[in-house]
Amino acid sequence: MKIALAQLNYHVGNFESNTAKIIDHIKKARGNGADLVVFSELCICGYPSRDFLEFSEFIELCESSAQKIAAECKDIACIIGLPTPNHRPEGKELNNSAYFIEGGKVKAIANKALLPNYDIFDEYRYFEPATEFNCIEFKGHRIALTICEDLWNTIENPLYITRPMDILIQQQPDVMINIAASPFAYNHDEERIAILSDNAKRYHLPLLYVNHVGAQTELIFDGGSLVFDNTGKLIDELPYFEEQVAYYELDKNSNITFNHQSTLKAERQSDIEQIHQGIILGIRDYFYKSGFKQAILGLSGGIDSAVVCALAVEALGPKNVMAVLLPSRFSSDHSIKDAEDLVKNLGCLHETIAIKDITEAFETTLKPQFKDLPFNIAEENIQSRSRAVLLMAMCNKFGYILLNTSNKSEAAVGYGTLYGDMCGGISVIGDVYKTQVFELARHINREREIIPENSIIKPPSAELRPDQKDTDSLPEYDILDKIIAEYVEHRCSSAEIIKMGYDEKTVRRVIRLVNLAEHKRYQTPPILRVSPKAFGMGRRMPIVGKYLS
Amino acid sequence: MKIALAQLNYHVGNFESNTAKIIDHIKKARGNGADLVVFSELCICGYPSRDFLEFSEFIELCESSAQKIAAECKDIACIIGLPTPNHRPEGKELNNSAYFIEGGKVKAIANKALLPNYDIFDEYRYFEPATEFNCIEFKGHRIALTICEDLWNTIENPLYITRPMDILIQQQPDVMINIAASPFAYNHDEERIAILSDNAKRYHLPLLYVNHVGAQTELIFDGGSLVFDNTGKLIDELPYFEEQVAYYELDKNSNITFNHQSTLKAERQSDIEQIHQGIILGIRDYFYKSGFKQAILGLSGGIDSAVVCALAVEALGPKNVMAVLLPSRFSSDHSIKDAEDLVKNLGCLHETIAIKDITEAFETTLKPQFKDLPFNIAEENIQSRSRAVLLMAMCNKFGYILLNTSNKSEAAVGYGTLYGDMCGGISVIGDVYKTQVFELARHINREREIIPENSIIKPPSAELRPDQKDTDSLPEYDILDKIIAEYVEHRCSSAEIIKMGYDEKTVRRVIRLVNLAEHKRYQTPPILRVSPKAFGMGRRMPIVGKYLS
Repeated sequence: MKIALAQLNYHVGNFESNTAKIIDHIKKARGNGADLVVFSELCICGYPSRDFLEFSEFIELCESSAQKIAAECKDIACIIGLPTPNHRPEGKELNNSAYFIEGGKVKAIANKALLPNYDIFDEYRYFEPATEFNCIEFKGHRIALTICEDLWNTIENPLYITRPMDILIQQQPDVMINIAASPFAYNHDEERIAILSDNAKRYHLPLLYVNHVGAQTELIFDGGSLVFDNTGKLIDELPYFEEQVAYYELDKNSNITFNHQSTLKAERQSDIEQIHQGIILGIRDYFYKSGFKQAILGLSGGIDSAVVCALAVEALGPKNVMAVLLPSRFSSDHSIKDAEDLVKNLGCLHETIAIKDITEAFETTLKPQFKDLPFNIAEENIQSRSRAVLLMAMCNKFGYILLNTSNKSEAAVGYGTLYGDMCGGISVIGDVYKTQVFELARHINREREIIPENSIIKPPSAELRPDQKDTDSLPEYDILDKIIAEYVEHRCSSAEIIKMGYDEKTVRRVIRLVNLAEHKRYQTPPILRVSPKAFGMGRRMPIVGKYLS
Repeated sequence: MKIALAQLNYHVGNFESNTAKIIDHIKKARGNGADLVVFSELCICGYPSRDFLEFSEFIELCESSAQKIAAECKDIACIIGLPTPNHRPEGKELNNSAYFIEGGKVKAIANKALLPNYDIFDEYRYFEPATEFNCIEFKGHRIALTICEDLWNTIENPLYITRPMDILIQQQPDVMINIAASPFAYNHDEERIAILSDNAKRYHLPLLYVNHVGAQTELIFDGGSLVFDNTGKLIDELPYFEEQVAYYELDKNSNITFNHQSTLKAERQSDIEQIHQGIILGIRDYFYKSGFKQAILGLSGGIDSAVVCALAVEALGPKNVMAVLLPSRFSSDHSIKDAEDLVKNLGCLHETIAIKDITEAFETTLKPQFKDLPFNIAEENIQSRSRAVLLMAMCNKFGYILLNTSNKSEAAVGYGTLYGDMCGGISVIGDVYKTQVFELARHINREREIIPENSIIKPPSAELRPDQKDTDSLPEYDILDKIIAEYVEHRCSSAEIIKMGYDEKTVRRVIRLVNLAEHKRYQTPPILRVSPKAFGMGRRMPIVGKYLS
């Protein structure tokens, strides 16, 4: 039996393009002699469709798309994923289903049993878990078909009570197929390989795994579909961050062979390389899927906006990126020169708009209220917000989308101005710590200097008052980032972090800042997720809550 | 047996104040001869604690608070709610539990089985559902203790597979107690009474129900705790939107009697009266629990900001509300006069800050980029954003919190400026349709004219260009609000709404506007929830999704 694994980029709710793409690949696979084409989880509607799933019209469109696809499968079989109505009287209204289509009809349906409902996942919001499991007979093979998380229950301290493969194995399948929508995090590929390998080994079955690729707003799906033999050995790995279709022959003894050059890697990509590629895909799909072409951003001469600008140019092309220098009376000469050097290196569009007249107009207008009160955060924020108004005016006049340039360290401690530099349509590096931003800059410069060396080596500064440095208000970033990671990603308390050897005063201050910034983060743009715990949908904190650890 | 129902206002994560309040009420109840005091669901930590629940320190603090409370219960019993570790090896790490405390110790634990995971609820994110159910023996009675949603499975097409009371009833209890954290929506009180009455009737048992009261950021809990006899008749109802403790005598025949004047209502409060009271509580608790005192808002002379100003003054007092008039060259004379009249009627703080010099500075500064392109949305938004910068500068200088004044109709169709009038710490009327805002204004004026009649009767306008009217861009509000409700609240498709008799072109335009505004709503403040479907946590839509109904 010849099986095609189709690792494709879908668009949430775009039935027309998703269905056309699936049918197109069925035709190609037929031409290549495949017996079965496997598409990924919820490929018909895209993942995550969120509350679109609560519209019965949306569910009907999923079914009618599936029927169009079935009509193309007279002489080939396929597996597709879609939400379907739960026909039992009790429970949630939907199942997260896989259709096995053969002879132009839906021959079998497998429903997902283990529904992730943590971090960015909300599957229990929509779906009822499956309680029945049946293998599928096809061309002399017996397929154990499961959906994504269904195989993620082999670890110690399991999150779920059931284990679908323990039931399916009793029916003596000779191959496992798993269709997935498993989002990217820089450390997720190795975990995924380990868990899937465990399954192949535990059940002594070969395993074919097909993942989504492509970004849906903040969530990036990295592809990297996998094939294991029945000892748990990884025998093939599809590329990451791009579409790919690959063909495999499954013989009667459950051996899997293939003719193409394997992209199996001798060593894993570095975290930074993965983050880099993930962000490029994230930017590209955000613009493509929302129907926009051109990005705008403010360039300060600092490293964050420089890195975002370089990534945007790589993703969208230099003629689709407008970099705006917005100097104030506190901008240093080197900042302006660094920003100009960057623009020269990248060849992108650029403008310079000085904010002096505007901030003076604000200060003059507020004189009757502010009187002679000293310059403080109010005047600092007026600068940052004046820049945002200018950038948004450019967006409104010319159709750009503003890129947010805040990094994860700043977002964590609230070192940014709400409605100022925290604005944007999408946050590009909001899940990248400052220390990782430096790595990313070096990585971008690996072949030639794109980001001016001076932007990398100079001490970070918001330049909102004379001689300001980030370290005036914050600990050094190498300490700060570690404390944030312990608190935000590992859920450690202040007491636990102090026990690790960090300075007590620093720990308490950082955690206090993180908590006090919840109200700011609530109003910031979606953040491209590259870590296991990003700010946004995956981290839901009370705003007026008191617990400060 | 004398039972006290304690309907109290907790603060998420504030263990110190929650524990002190509970102990204080135990002491009072003991003084009043109670045998048992019943507190509400998750009262120890507050509801919803969201991802605070993922910190093991947080769970330990819940347990140590419960032990402090137990130590006060040597000669009285109490029921408290808290998250507890799930001691089974599989499943989520926590249970949503009720402790029955007697003789200074935890005598019994009831865990919640039906975990709401829809709209604003995320309980499956944290909790494993209970599978074992046991009645509690106390003073010759047998209590069937359940938690909130556990009793919400009596309706047709039930959402859950199990029904805890069907198991508990086999153990022959003589009374049901249900502890809840059931959030307010203007139509929720009647539904709650109907479902709980069904339970009392179905199981032939009296039912005592204790709800939270108070607001946690956007979620308002309305109290209204209930007592039913074993025929399902409502025999007592605690007040709404305020704390209250009431005492009941349960005799050996399961009859419930009480001595106080019942607050049972002859007729239900009107929707608008409930919304009014809910918002007042929402504003008050947002400020009190976040440690702020003073609000600021921009007054346009229109009805939305007038209503918000009146509500803020009622909630916080006139000396804690700063109303700022921010006229532009497009502000009409009557707008300024209407705003001044309002300020006079309310006696609140006020300032007038003209934005002309600022918008001119923006336009002059942008001249090299904008050249002679015609005035459009870019210049309109500069006005709205200049006002936001001024209001935020006042916040930063003087410590105010900005109140957002957008209504639900505007928020739905994106008729507002992101980083402009969509700014604020909390959205006061973001869940109130424009047609309801008019009702609310009339309600506020029921005894005397507070909101100037002219603000109510004049045609709504954003006044961002000469002679602008809302109806230039939008359908009449009475039509618009109905279409939005069908789409947003009832999940109807455009085809279904058109079938109801609405104009096709209008329906398609409104739905398109709602979908296109997802990216704006993503970045707006938390909205006080007063309806069954508010924008925010309870409605999770894709941003780059394509489905437009």
